[in-house]
Amino acid sequence: MKESGLYQSPWNFLGLPEDLAQPGRARAWVLPVPYEATTSYDAGTRNGPAAILSASRPIERFDPEFDCEPASEFGVHTLPPLKVTYRSPEAMLDNVARAVTGILTGSPAPDLLAVLGGEHSLSAGVARGLAAARPGLDLVAVQIDAHADLADEYDGSRFSHACAARRILDTCPVFQVGIRSLSAAEEKFRRSSSRVQTVFAEDAKPGGAWLKALGRFVKGKTVFLTIDVDGLDPSIMPAVGTPEPGGISWETLLDVARVICREAGSLPVFDVVELAPIRGLISPDYICARLVYKIMSLALMRRKPGRKSR
Amino acid sequence: MKESGLYQSPWNFLGLPEDLAQPGRARAWVLPVPYEATTSYDAGTRNGPAAILSASRPIERFDPEFDCEPASEFGVHTLPPLKVTYRSPEAMLDNVARAVTGILTGSPAPDLLAVLGGEHSLSAGVARGLAAARPGLDLVAVQIDAHADLADEYDGSRFSHACAARRILDTCPVFQVGIRSLSAAEEKFRRSSSRVQTVFAEDAKPGGAWLKALGRFVKGKTVFLTIDVDGLDPSIMPAVGTPEPGGISWETLLDVARVICREAGSLPVFDVVELAPIRGLISPDYICARLVYKIMSLALMRRKPGRKSR
Amino acid sequence: MKESGLYQSPWNFLGLPEDLAQPGRARAWVLPVPYEATTSYDAGTRNGPAAILSASRPIERFDPEFDCEPASEFGVHTLPPLKVTYRSPEAMLDNVARAVTGILTGSPAPDLLAVLGGEHSLSAGVARGLAAARPGLDLVAVQIDAHADLADEYDGSRFSHACAARRILDTCPVFQVGIRSLSAAEEKFRRSSSRVQTVFAEDAKPGGAWLKALGRFVKGKTVFLTIDVDGLDPSIMPAVGTPEPGGISWETLLDVARVICREAGSLPVFDVVELAPIRGLISPDYICARLVYKIMSLALMRRKPGRKSR
Amino acid sequence: MKESGLYQSPWNFLGLPEDLAQPGRARAWVLPVPYEATTSYDAGTRNGPAAILSASRPIERFDPEFDCEPASEFGVHTLPPLKVTYRSPEAMLDNVARAVTGILTGSPAPDLLAVLGGEHSLSAGVARGLAAARPGLDLVAVQIDAHADLADEYDGSRFSHACAARRILDTCPVFQVGIRSLSAAEEKFRRSSSRVQTVFAEDAKPGGAWLKALGRFVKGKTVFLTIDVDGLDPSIMPAVGTPEPGGISWETLLDVARVICREAGSLPVFDVVELAPIRGLISPDYICARLVYKIMSLALMRRKPGRKSR
Amino acid sequence: MKESGLYQSPWNFLGLPEDLAQPGRARAWVLPVPYEATTSYDAGTRNGPAAILSASRPIERFDPEFDCEPASEFGVHTLPPLKVTYRSPEAMLDNVARAVTGILTGSPAPDLLAVLGGEHSLSAGVARGLAAARPGLDLVAVQIDAHADLADEYDGSRFSHACAARRILDTCPVFQVGIRSLSAAEEKFRRSSSRVQTVFAEDAKPGGAWLKALGRFVKGKTVFLTIDVDGLDPSIMPAVGTPEPGGISWETLLDVARVICREAGSLPVFDVVELAPIRGLISPDYICARLVYKIMSLALMRRKPGRKSR
Amino acid sequence: MKESGLYQSPWNFLGLPEDLAQPGRARAWVLPVPYEATTSYDAGTRNGPAAILSASRPIERFDPEFDCEPASEFGVHTLPPLKVTYRSPEAMLDNVARAVTGILTGSPAPDLLAVLGGEHSLSAGVARGLAAARPGLDLVAVQIDAHADLADEYDGSRFSHACAARRILDTCPVFQVGIRSLSAAEEKFRRSSSRVQTVFAEDAKPGGAWLKALGRFVKGKTVFLTIDVDGLDPSIMPAVGTPEPGGISWETLLDVARVICREAGSLPVFDVVELAPIRGLISPDYICARLVYKIMSLALMRRKPGRKSR
Repeated sequence: MKESGLYQSPWNFLGLPEDLAQPGRARAWVLPVPYEATTSYDAGTRNGPAAILSASRPIERFDPEFDCEPASEFGVHTLPPLKVTYRSPEAMLDNVARAVTGILTGSPAPDLLAVLGGEHSLSAGVARGLAAARPGLDLVAVQIDAHADLADEYDGSRFSHACAARRILDTCPVFQVGIRSLSAAEEKFRRSSSRVQTVFAEDAKPGGAWLKALGRFVKGKTVFLTIDVDGLDPSIMPAVGTPEPGGISWETLLDVARVICREAGSLPVFDVVELAPIRGLISPDYICARLVYKIMSLALMRRKPGRKSR
Repeated sequence: MKESGLYQSPWNFLGLPEDLAQPGRARAWVLPVPYEATTSYDAGTRNGPAAILSASRPIERFDPEFDCEPASEFGVHTLPPLKVTYRSPEAMLDNVARAVTGILTGSPAPDLLAVLGGEHSLSAGVARGLAAARPGLDLVAVQIDAHADLADEYDGSRFSHACAARRILDTCPVFQVGIRSLSAAEEKFRRSSSRVQTVFAEDAKPGGAWLKALGRFVKGKTVFLTIDVDGLDPSIMPAVGTPEPGGISWETLLDVARVICREAGSLPVFDVVELAPIRGLISPDYICARLVYKIMSLALMRRKPGRKSR
Repeated sequence: MKESGLYQSPWNFLGLPEDLAQPGRARAWVLPVPYEATTSYDAGTRNGPAAILSASRPIERFDPEFDCEPASEFGVHTLPPLKVTYRSPEAMLDNVARAVTGILTGSPAPDLLAVLGGEHSLSAGVARGLAAARPGLDLVAVQIDAHADLADEYDGSRFSHACAARRILDTCPVFQVGIRSLSAAEEKFRRSSSRVQTVFAEDAKPGGAWLKALGRFVKGKTVFLTIDVDGLDPSIMPAVGTPEPGGISWETLLDVARVICREAGSLPVFDVVELAPIRGLISPDYICARLVYKIMSLALMRRKPGRKSR
Repeated sequence: MKESGLYQSPWNFLGLPEDLAQPGRARAWVLPVPYEATTSYDAGTRNGPAAILSASRPIERFDPEFDCEPASEFGVHTLPPLKVTYRSPEAMLDNVARAVTGILTGSPAPDLLAVLGGEHSLSAGVARGLAAARPGLDLVAVQIDAHADLADEYDGSRFSHACAARRILDTCPVFQVGIRSLSAAEEKFRRSSSRVQTVFAEDAKPGGAWLKALGRFVKGKTVFLTIDVDGLDPSIMPAVGTPEPGGISWETLLDVARVICREAGSLPVFDVVELAPIRGLISPDYICARLVYKIMSLALMRRKPGRKSR
Repeated sequence: MKESGLYQSPWNFLGLPEDLAQPGRARAWVLPVPYEATTSYDAGTRNGPAAILSASRPIERFDPEFDCEPASEFGVHTLPPLKVTYRSPEAMLDNVARAVTGILTGSPAPDLLAVLGGEHSLSAGVARGLAAARPGLDLVAVQIDAHADLADEYDGSRFSHACAARRILDTCPVFQVGIRSLSAAEEKFRRSSSRVQTVFAEDAKPGGAWLKALGRFVKGKTVFLTIDVDGLDPSIMPAVGTPEPGGISWETLLDVARVICREAGSLPVFDVVELAPIRGLISPDYICARLVYKIMSLALMRRKPGRKSR
Repeated sequence: MKESGLYQSPWNFLGLPEDLAQPGRARAWVLPVPYEATTSYDAGTRNGPAAILSASRPIERFDPEFDCEPASEFGVHTLPPLKVTYRSPEAMLDNVARAVTGILTGSPAPDLLAVLGGEHSLSAGVARGLAAARPGLDLVAVQIDAHADLADEYDGSRFSHACAARRILDTCPVFQVGIRSLSAAEEKFRRSSSRVQTVFAEDAKPGGAWLKALGRFVKGKTVFLTIDVDGLDPSIMPAVGTPEPGGISWETLLDVARVICREAGSLPVFDVVELAPIRGLISPDYICARLVYKIMSLALMRRKPGRKSR
């Protein structure tokens, strides 16, 4: 029926051929969660996952850092978007947690799950789903963000995007990088809590001591990496709700990922959230797609001996 | 401190001078409700109220139909936007109902309240709030819409925008105009229910018998007019989530308003909902603002004797 | 692995559940051809097919004209987009023709194929592919368009979008509706050719004699319906390269489709081309999607006896 | 140096070849006046002239109404945009008047000058410049507009866009078509003035008596036609500052032009103003370009005997 | 009448509760001046003030540099936008000067006035108004800008945006930072004038000697800080008319503000001008709002002893 | 006919007066080539040349580096855009080559030709045209790019934008700067070829040894500089099809140009390609225009003795 070569590659992350995208073959899976409901400022994060998938298609698969095409080795399976119930944030969190647990404990199951948001509030569901799937393990979270997201309640809800990190703390300790906006209550909580460490954006410079602290934090642990893309500087990531100036650079973000992939016991899941695509401006979408692919490669590829990490 | 004449007119509906916009002076009040949460298609109705207010400022106050400046006679007070709790649609509806009841039974109170949405699901709250404020009266609703909105449940919620008319029916009967999209279940319900009358868009032509039926429906009643602007044809109202072709014209919409204002016992409240502003395209915003002002004038002005209605 | 109910419906035309979208089950198939290369004015038709698919998802499946959900009866299968070789327009046409022939003669094969463009030049490939698939049959084409597209050569190419109808004439006669722009050479050719009939836009009014002529033209024939959406008036279809004022209405377009479906021997394929989506303005995309669904229903559903066509 | 055929046609109205665009050859000239300063609502009319020129390039030159390529017969010369001094509206008006007089009395001079705005306030300068160039003649103006523009002063200026028609009245009487917004003071002035006739939009229907009145008004006179494009309905002309619903149709606008070209003594100049281009939406720009070309053709072409006007 | 908690916070800078926004309580006032008339390149600065106000609402009030919520201590009152007469730039300047003088000498009066533009030409009015309000004081201006703005006349006007700094020099000496575009005449004037000092963008690096020179320039003086946001690099501030590459960084801009607040005798007024908001791209608006709040805090808060400035 | 001073400066690069823009006077010429056909990702490069020309008009002609107005000394002539045949990429390349050869060998001829793209595939035509015009000379190319563009074939074509550098290699050796994306095949080819040198983006830092290597590469040669603007970092150049993070800075790009202008034997032609303008975001257009002017100045101006290069 379909003559080979006449049709385009399937609609999946990186536009991979079907064999590389089968669940039984792919070691990395992508789960889109286009959830948006509690955002206070401006709308758009519900379009984030579709924008990242679309932008990922022209990405070149070859990566000089690994001198090969990582995706052709590990494969990537793209799940359909999660159905996000709008009844309440709690119901959404339950669904996300249930989906993540189901995926990680299923058969076949991925070695690495990349969740694409959607607003940051969903990350607490990811953490909870991971904890349920890996019950005995020592879990920690690393958070890239401009905002501490440590509010216990916001706009009358304990599950607002402004409570994202606080709800993750219900599951495991958190190491924050890039923070430059928080409330007085969050600052007070942060100082009093032994479960949260914060590296402010002005201190998150290349080669700083904070990278060593991060290494110690994740050492041997099962890590959940949650990336609110507004942690990046608005110069390269303007497509967010509250684009705080003075953010971290692309290189610093990769440094964080490299430390985690080198030191952690395992990285079974990460998410990239809060992209609010701007019509006509593909740069932020493309950079997010690049980021997802790079983290997959860092996590799943064995390093070539004798080649220094960049 | 402020030298008179140096500053712009205040930020309110029509940009009226402060004396015409005081609650004690104004017979018409405007309540913005920037609620959006259950929309399935595309985002943006939360920006509707602000867009209508902004577009209303350059409107010419003089109206040849009344040979005067209606707004200068009745005055318009603009309330701050309602705080819309995102915990759940139910909580939103309670707040809207509470606000509407509070406004209509307060002192001072308006003769006419215009609610600006936001998505259509909020209209059930308006109806409920009106019923609570006017307990003894015989209440009916007139709905302009492309969609029947008669679903009893949608996406797991009984308070979705697709259930707007069904939830209004919990309060009072509904006369629908402009419908051109509905589900099999809605069609079945519509036929079986004695509380809903439907004029499909293809039948909603000028001078049709349906206008007489509408007159009988509202005769002497207390009317709630709820206008989902997607009832209009997409040629003049493209800024909606699902712009169904074959909609009613601007003139037909004014005909409906004129029949209601002529035949109804009273029109204490109406809403204009589902405008999803398009950046750079002010035409839909401006037309909505014009519509709100025209309905106010039709409802609140005595007709000049000897001047025929257009 | 995937818990039922957690995930969204698949990404296909109308967002149908997988069983209704299988090739073996579906009587209607959709083929996206995102081709754009010869456009002289402004870019964007390559984004047309994706926009139509995306806009089709919230469409209500129930149709009052048939008092049922037509798509639930006939099913719709969505093919992956055709790979459009950019070597030359000729190569593109060959691929389109090859794909259309392959689909129509395959097993399973659809009863009706809807091709989504892309620029109008691809329609000659559709016609050629249809002729190859139905060799013995008496083929005619009906063209909705603002432009005659009868140039024998344009910008040095015989396969430009301005030659679309001329190249279809290489395969079969053409009946044009909605024309309001053509060159002196096209006018001369049109008058001299017995294979082309033209109904100018100003004459394409409801109930005109031209509809009878159309009925005679298609009577008992195998029809290819090719719709350049700029045939519609710019008031509802501004998202085209050259939006000529004075176009036909939505109702007139449906009249054309109804005459064809009533009088033709068969309608095995139609295309909808030249949509150039405008960012932020979903109305044209949605109207195109509605059009595709309506033509499918008119072509594939048996009419309810005793119910008058509208 | 330049090999013939390698380069695109020059950047002028309709993209004409250089010989048809020379001042000595062309009977029609185009003068862009990108002036914008007094607009109260939203910005953008300064981009109008460039948008019309750009949109005019793909227009088909052949016109079935004349069965030839009118532009190939009369030629069109495009002047550089007028330098618009921002010191004051008065200075702008002086410059416009000076330029128009200079063009109409120069050698070579056009038979017809098309001025592209820019905001409507410039039209008073066009009228004044025409009066100075044709001192002995009996001058009248026909105004297409949604707004009466009869204010004697607005925002502290007698030369605001809201005073456009009032300032033209300083030069000659005015016949207005399409009006649907005016102030109480304008209404009072309009009724008391013998120099202004107004056809409201609701009365400007095809075949009305008003067309005969227009014919009498322009009979044998030297006519200045000034078209504020917001006179058209927002469904086809949304790209204006205050898009009033209920406007005139494309066909009605052409009717006005046909009456003028048939009855007037001469039409030496017309303007098309207040287009405020919307990024990404070319339809309004294209329709304005079509309008300019059509009026040129109606004014400059002899009608084919025996062919009825449409 | 209004039930507490149901309504959103008022529409003012930072969305402060009413008590913090009263003129008698607030030490900082905001004056929007949406003036735009002389811009040569592209339109939009008239939308700047509204965009900054809108973007300021989600800003977190807590500031780690002061370990408190500065705005909750000093309060901010937002004035209505200045009515900007379009008769002439001179009239606009007179009004701005009159308003600034009126505000600074009124009762109550702010300790700090933030003026939001609008185009840079208005800053000369601010300077003049300040001089009139503080007659005996030793006034200097610090200008952040990509352009020297030292033209004595531009496009026939002495009050163009290209003359902004030259007109400020009529009132007081100017220290310029970030300059990377100027004309030959401006360069000549700059070298010959003892009243202007220029730090070119390429020299405005962190920790440079120029910061010491700035400190000496403002030492003990009454300072007017005028920020044309195109002084910033286009990577974070693309929303300007002429976005010159090679601009200063966010950190450098804060360094300038810190030096002024530490060394100056007083900073009674500053302005932020030339933001030309881009639809859909909130990042520049948000950064401007952040900037306004930060300067307010630096100027009005006492520093915590023992806490080092960042 | 035209009164001097009434009209705007002509529509050419930098908006120069006519005398400075005459071919016989101008040493620099600009050739727009709005070609786009093989782009795989997103459309828009065909609008690049017009956007650069438009953005160039407000550029200040004075350059502090040369302490004069370079353009007033060398003059710039702007050619009409090349007619780009869409029959095939090969035909386009032939036309570009023919045009470049014709211009460089004509009389008058420019000292420096700036070609504005359009997609990168056209650069091979520029190289070929240059080689034909300067047959005896030792030609080399310097390429700024994010992508190696070394594919021998892509999407079935040897003339795709992904083959740009490979096709230039058919004419001369290439020195690449800023590369951060390439395929496995390109990496293999690159390592094996003696005709290509690559400086990856991460190594292209200020003051690196690579600048010396570049100096040796161009020493005394006839250089063709081809700039794919996606070589720059997306923070200042987001308006490209595939905006790879980690790009080179504006300063580094100028360093490359300075080394070439200092060390090369001559620079007769350069191109700036792949700008895909984003509606409403002028910053990338303006930066490209600035770049073109700066390279012209560096190439054509004698340096002031004793003034150090920046």
